[in-house]
Amino acid sequence: MHLTQPVHKALLERPEATALICKNRRCSFATFAGRVSRPAAELRDLGVHAGERVAILGHNSDHYVESLYATWWAGGVINPLNARWNVHEIAFSLDDSQTRILLVDPAFLPVVEQLRGLSRALAVVLCLGEGRGDTMAADDDVESLIAAAVPIEDARRGGEDLAAIMYTGGTTGRSKGVMLSHGNLYLGQLSACLAAPRPDDAVGLNPAPLFHIGGLGLTLQLMLRLCPQILVPGFDEAQMLSLIERERASETFLVPTMLKRLIEHPRFAEHDLSSLALVLYGAAPIDEPLLAIALERLPHTRFAQLYGMTELSPVVAALPPWCHAAGQPRGRLRSVGRPVPIAEVRIVGASGALLPPGSVGEIVACGPMVMSGYWNLPEQSAEALRGGWLHTGDVGYLDEDGFLYVVDRLKDMIVSGGENVYSAEVENAIAQMPQVEMCAVIGVPDETWGECVHAVIVLRDGALLDAEQVIAHCRGLIARYKCPRGVSFVERLSLSPAGKILKQPLRAALSPRGKA
Amino acid sequence: MHLTQPVHKALLERPEATALICKNRRCSFATFAGRVSRPAAELRDLGVHAGERVAILGHNSDHYVESLYATWWAGGVINPLNARWNVHEIAFSLDDSQTRILLVDPAFLPVVEQLRGLSRALAVVLCLGEGRGDTMAADDDVESLIAAAVPIEDARRGGEDLAAIMYTGGTTGRSKGVMLSHGNLYLGQLSACLAAPRPDDAVGLNPAPLFHIGGLGLTLQLMLRLCPQILVPGFDEAQMLSLIERERASETFLVPTMLKRLIEHPRFAEHDLSSLALVLYGAAPIDEPLLAIALERLPHTRFAQLYGMTELSPVVAALPPWCHAAGQPRGRLRSVGRPVPIAEVRIVGASGALLPPGSVGEIVACGPMVMSGYWNLPEQSAEALRGGWLHTGDVGYLDEDGFLYVVDRLKDMIVSGGENVYSAEVENAIAQMPQVEMCAVIGVPDETWGECVHAVIVLRDGALLDAEQVIAHCRGLIARYKCPRGVSFVERLSLSPAGKILKQPLRAALSPRGKA
Repeated sequence: MHLTQPVHKALLERPEATALICKNRRCSFATFAGRVSRPAAELRDLGVHAGERVAILGHNSDHYVESLYATWWAGGVINPLNARWNVHEIAFSLDDSQTRILLVDPAFLPVVEQLRGLSRALAVVLCLGEGRGDTMAADDDVESLIAAAVPIEDARRGGEDLAAIMYTGGTTGRSKGVMLSHGNLYLGQLSACLAAPRPDDAVGLNPAPLFHIGGLGLTLQLMLRLCPQILVPGFDEAQMLSLIERERASETFLVPTMLKRLIEHPRFAEHDLSSLALVLYGAAPIDEPLLAIALERLPHTRFAQLYGMTELSPVVAALPPWCHAAGQPRGRLRSVGRPVPIAEVRIVGASGALLPPGSVGEIVACGPMVMSGYWNLPEQSAEALRGGWLHTGDVGYLDEDGFLYVVDRLKDMIVSGGENVYSAEVENAIAQMPQVEMCAVIGVPDETWGECVHAVIVLRDGALLDAEQVIAHCRGLIARYKCPRGVSFVERLSLSPAGKILKQPLRAALSPRGKA
Repeated sequence: MHLTQPVHKALLERPEATALICKNRRCSFATFAGRVSRPAAELRDLGVHAGERVAILGHNSDHYVESLYATWWAGGVINPLNARWNVHEIAFSLDDSQTRILLVDPAFLPVVEQLRGLSRALAVVLCLGEGRGDTMAADDDVESLIAAAVPIEDARRGGEDLAAIMYTGGTTGRSKGVMLSHGNLYLGQLSACLAAPRPDDAVGLNPAPLFHIGGLGLTLQLMLRLCPQILVPGFDEAQMLSLIERERASETFLVPTMLKRLIEHPRFAEHDLSSLALVLYGAAPIDEPLLAIALERLPHTRFAQLYGMTELSPVVAALPPWCHAAGQPRGRLRSVGRPVPIAEVRIVGASGALLPPGSVGEIVACGPMVMSGYWNLPEQSAEALRGGWLHTGDVGYLDEDGFLYVVDRLKDMIVSGGENVYSAEVENAIAQMPQVEMCAVIGVPDETWGECVHAVIVLRDGALLDAEQVIAHCRGLIARYKCPRGVSFVERLSLSPAGKILKQPLRAALSPRGKA
C-alpha cells in the first residue's frame, strides 16, 4: 500500500478524467502524473533520499496536492506546516524534523526571509506555481522546474515506510511530530470511506486545510477512488454554494459551524445543491435544531460524523447517515459514532484496566492506522502507545450498542474553530511576561467557534497589565488562533493538593450557565 | 490486520448483538467468541501450531463459521474443502496440504471411513455439532469439546501470516492450493465493501458456499462490520424469500441464474422484501431483460457485480449500483466494472507489454490482496506472479472510462452454475478410458447453468463407447459438477501446427447459434 498508487491506477484506467479543479485550472490525471513526477525529479536532484522530509506551506490548491504526491514520488516524507502558525512555530517544526526543503505558496513568500534567519535546517525554498515574481525569497519556482525536468520513476515507498510527519500541539507546551506511514494513511482513508459510505461516482469539494489530517484525509480518500476534487483555499459560504452547483459536487467536509453558515446564507435558495449527497462533519457534534434545518434545506444530503485525531490517521469512529434519521434514540447525535472496522476501541481506567459499557474512562485504540510514534520523542511515544494502545487523552464511554461518547479531555485542550489549542502552550507564552505570577488557560463555550481561548491570570504584587497587552504579547509568540480572546485577572487560583491549578471551577464560572 | 479482530471488537462494542443465525439457532457475538476460543483450545491440544492446516467439510452453517474462526484463533490455517468434490479429490487436498485434522458436518460422516483409507495425512476427525450419533467415523464431536474446554487466548496471527489454503481447479489437470494471508483476506473484504457500498446497519444472508472465496468473503465482510448474518446450506428460492422477510435481510450474494429463480418464484409477491437493499452478484453478467424485471420487482434493491478470483481474495473489479440505473451507455452491463481502489489492473500482450485502452489482452493485477502463491508449487507460482503481477488467465480490455470487460479465458475453463471446471481435469479423467484415442472438453452455453461441460471424443479403432459410460466413468474420478452432461463422438479433432486441439471450431459447432 503506497500513497502514490492511485496515480498509477489512474494512468491505466482513466488518464483523461479530471483529477483536480482549482480556480480556473482543471487538470486530468495524466497531467497530474506529469506534474508529480517532474518536480519529484528536481527533489531527487536536491538530494531528497528515501525518508527525507519536505515541508509545504500554503493554502489548499491543486499545487499543494501536487507537492504532496511529488514528495512521495521522490521517496520523501511530507511535513505540512500549519498556515496559521507564526514564523517561530514554523521554524520549530522545520528544525525539529530537520527539514531542508520548503515548498511555499506565493502568499507566504513574505515570511521566507525571516524563516531563513530563524531556522537552521532550512536550505532550499521553492515557490509553488509561477508566483515568485521579483522577490529573491525563493530559490526557484516549481513551474520552471516542471517545464525543465525529466520525469523520474516512482520510488514506490509503501507499507511501513514513513509518509508524513504532522505536527500537533502538545500537552507539554511544544508541538510533537506525529509519524504516519504509507500504510497508516492508506488504510485510514480506506476505512473512513467504508465507515461513512460515499456517493457513487463522486465529485469532492475540500475546504478543510490540507495541513490538517482531516483535509489531507479527504483529498487522499478522493484520490484513492479516482474521483475529481475541487480545492478551495478556505471556507467561504458564497464560493461553496457556487462551486457545489457549478461542479455538481457530491461530498465535502465541514465543521458544524460552517454547515450553519452555509445553510443560513442569504442566497442559499438560489443555488441547486441537489448533487450534494454527503456532508462529513467533525470536531464537534451537530445539534438537533441545526440537523433539522439541514435535513429540510438539503433533502438530498446525508450526514456523517467522523471522530479521530492525527495519531489515528485520523478516523477511529463514525456516526453514519442512518443515525441522523428521525426515530433514533434521543441523545445519539451526541455520540461520535461506532468504532470503524479497522479499529479496536477500549475504555480504560487510570490503572489501565478495561472498563465495562457505560463506565467513563480514557478512550484508547489500536489497529493498523495507529501512528508509529512522535518524531524524536521516544519517551512520549512509549507513554502514548503503552501496551500497544494509543491513549487518546479523550475521556468517554461506550454504550450498550457500541456507540462511543466523548465527555471530556484528559489532555488539557481547547477546540476552537476546528483547531486544537493546547492550554500548556498558551500558558507557557503568557508566563514569559514578567508581570504574571500564575495563569490558567481554558476554553469557554462560544456559538461561532465552539470554544474560545480564555486566560485567567494572577499578577505579581504591584504589577499592572491589561487584556490587550496579554493578547499582543501572545501574538508575538504563537499563532493567532491560539491567543486568548478574553483575559480575566483574579486574586488567586485554587490548587489541588499536588499543586496543580484546578480548572474546573474556572470553567464553571466562565461558562454562560455559570454566569447565569 | 488479523481475521479474528472482529471477535475482539464485538466483545468490546456489541457483545449481546446477534452474530449468526442458522436454522432455529441464533447466537450473540459473546456466545460466538466462546464457541471459537474453546474449540481453539482443543485444536491447540491436538498439536495445531502456528501455520498448521485444519480442513473443514460441510455446507454453510453457524458451526462452519465457528470452525473457521476457531482455527484462526488457535493459530491455524483453514483448508475449506469443496463439498461437491468426490472422495479422491478431498483426499488429494488433504494430502497435498498435509492436513491432519478434519472438521466435518454430520451430513458428510458417511465418506469419512473411505477418506481415512485414501488419505495418508488425515489423523483426527471431529464432527461439527452433536450429530456424531453412534457412528465411529469421527473421533469426537465439537459440542462435547466446547462443553469441556477452557478458552485459550487468541494466537493473533495476522498480516503476512498464512490464513487459508483454498484449492481451485488447475489448468494442468490437478487442483492448486491458493495461499492467502490474513492481510490478503482482510484487505480484500474491506475493499469489496468499499467497491459495492453496503447498506447501513446490515443483516446478511449468505447462500454462497463458504468453501468458495465468494461465500467466505461475504461472511468475512459481515463479520468485519459486526453485522448479523444468516447461514443457509445452499440456495433455495422459497427459503430465501421467507428468510429475507422474517429476518429483514438487507444484503446477499447470488449468481444471476439464482436471482432469476428468486424473482420468478410463484410465491414471490406474497413476501415483503423491502429490507433487501443490496444484491451482489458474480460469476456471470446480468442481462438487460433480467435486470429490468429485477428492478421492477425489487424497487428498494440496488445491484452490484463483483469480479475476481480466489488468487485475488477475491474482488478485483466491481460494477457499482449506479451503473445499473437507466441511461447508462449500452453494453455497460457486460462490463465487470472498474478495478477496485486497492487493485492496479493492466491489460498485457503475449510478450507482457502493456496494451492501450480498447486492446484485448490478458488481465493482470497487483495489490495487497494478491495471493502469496500456490502451495508447494514454486514454478507455477512464479509463472502466475511473474513481474509482480497476478496473471488471471482471463482475456479482456479496459475501455476509455476505466471499465473492464472480460471477453474470453486463456485458462481453458468452463463456468457451470458458479463453479469453475478446468477442461484439463475432465480430459485427464476421460483419457483414462482405454477406448479413448483423443478428447476435448469445452463449455456449451446453457440457460440454467451458464455453461455445461461437454466432451468431444475420438475413439480408438474398433472401440465401442456411449455417453452414459463416459459420464459414469468420470463420476468415479471427479466431482459430479465437473462431469460431462453431453458427449459427442467424432472421427477426428483438428489440431494446431503445435499439435494442440483447436477448440474454437467445436465451440462454434456446439453453441445454439452454431447449431442453427
